[in-house]
Amino acid sequence: MDQARINFLKKDFVQGFCDFVGYKPIMAAEGRFESRLDLEPRHMQQDGFAHAGVCATMADHTAGYAAFTLQPPDRRILTIEFKINFLKPAAGVALICRSRIISRGRTILPGESEIFSVAADGSEKLVAKAMVTMISVPAEQIQR
Amino acid sequence: MDQARINFLKKDFVQGFCDFVGYKPIMAAEGRFESRLDLEPRHMQQDGFAHAGVCATMADHTAGYAAFTLQPPDRRILTIEFKINFLKPAAGVALICRSRIISRGRTILPGESEIFSVAADGSEKLVAKAMVTMISVPAEQIQR
Amino acid sequence: MDQARINFLKKDFVQGFCDFVGYKPIMAAEGRFESRLDLEPRHMQQDGFAHAGVCATMADHTAGYAAFTLQPPDRRILTIEFKINFLKPAAGVALICRSRIISRGRTILPGESEIFSVAADGSEKLVAKAMVTMISVPAEQIQR
Amino acid sequence: MDQARINFLKKDFVQGFCDFVGYKPIMAAEGRFESRLDLEPRHMQQDGFAHAGVCATMADHTAGYAAFTLQPPDRRILTIEFKINFLKPAAGVALICRSRIISRGRTILPGESEIFSVAADGSEKLVAKAMVTMISVPAEQIQR
Repeated sequence: MDQARINFLKKDFVQGFCDFVGYKPIMAAEGRFESRLDLEPRHMQQDGFAHAGVCATMADHTAGYAAFTLQPPDRRILTIEFKINFLKPAAGVALICRSRIISRGRTILPGESEIFSVAADGSEKLVAKAMVTMISVPAEQIQR
Repeated sequence: MDQARINFLKKDFVQGFCDFVGYKPIMAAEGRFESRLDLEPRHMQQDGFAHAGVCATMADHTAGYAAFTLQPPDRRILTIEFKINFLKPAAGVALICRSRIISRGRTILPGESEIFSVAADGSEKLVAKAMVTMISVPAEQIQR
Repeated sequence: MDQARINFLKKDFVQGFCDFVGYKPIMAAEGRFESRLDLEPRHMQQDGFAHAGVCATMADHTAGYAAFTLQPPDRRILTIEFKINFLKPAAGVALICRSRIISRGRTILPGESEIFSVAADGSEKLVAKAMVTMISVPAEQIQR
Repeated sequence: MDQARINFLKKDFVQGFCDFVGYKPIMAAEGRFESRLDLEPRHMQQDGFAHAGVCATMADHTAGYAAFTLQPPDRRILTIEFKINFLKPAAGVALICRSRIISRGRTILPGESEIFSVAADGSEKLVAKAMVTMISVPAEQIQR
């Protein structure tokens, strides 16, 4: 993957809903992608932790871009389904998501996302883990 | 479930992340809850459909409040895990989520959420379906 | 779906592992399939209930044949992934599984399976529910 | 975990359905368990690969015993739900399953199982991966 493609994917990562929530790309490599979210009150649920949906969106979106790193520019990635386990309350100053593709089929791309909460002292704790099943489709097949 | 509890849950539904995204409660009954989201550009992903995370958050949150309808006020609901399948692109003017608890254990509460896209003419289409596993815990056990 | 195809699918259902465990087909219709397992000591786990794997296999296999009912004879069905929730201990004299395809895409076929335990008096109880994601592939693409 | 407990768990692993199918324990350690299945024609599905249910049962059962390694003898482990992705056709002479508990809560125990197919030359390939959510309950709470 050349630097131009990395730059494109990092920029493409931040748009629409994910721009609105505030996720930022950190790292892109072949079959891997990492992102970060600085936690604000708007990300919380009723008990003061990051909402399950904040973690789920991050797990899905970051896995999607991990899949994009293995695709030529004329392909799109769609999520078929995902499953996420919440292991610990997601507190702290930020969340980091690390995603990787675990099997490189031609069309079906299964990935994994691990979400870590980051404490004020920088220490990390695994708070959620997701398995995400994606499909690669020709870009022209997607129409609004 | 009395009307005061219904009113409380509907109000409680809209806070933090879910208020930020814009989900609204529509209906609460024993073991069931429904919500709605009027789709705006901020809810979209790169191809112009509602982001998978928008659907996932809605499926989780609405199922959570379906579980709350079966709980006394001194209990909290936490999501252990959920799984969501994306069946069709989520387009249209709004999303509606209908959740119900499918088995009433003492602590483990499994629920289902169906998400429908609503077209401009009011017609609905099933676009995503989730299974959500929740646990009921004493309120005092939750601490930030 | 003509009667010859129904007969073929019902016969095809019972082979290999599923013949070994003892699942029987009950009903086939467009997008639906039902099966039954008479419970024997060999199906149990350490606490005397039907093993989670007995339910999971039944949920997967029956959903697979529900998908087959929508396919021409030159296509095969593979399971991409499934998720199953265990709602109650699976006791009783038999298990019945009812599967249906919930969205009819060209290649990706998501289905649902509900497993009921049958008591000696014939009454049924929902004990497990699964979501199964399958893919339709050309038969010639599958090679040992 | 002392040797007597390890021996007990390895022996306990082989009973009922899992004895019938033929799974064998290989290794037990704190929070981890490994098992093996020598593949026979009775384990196959219609296309000549190990049935998805053979992998799913192995993923669930082995994760269950990984959870048992963290429990005192008066507790039982029940599977709340699991999800499994099938990455490649499961062919070869045997399957090996490696399970580990990924978060050690007091009651909810989430685990992961990886299933590898073993070729005649001993080489391994990851063919399936599962996430299994279990709950620890007092033994006396389980009654047939």
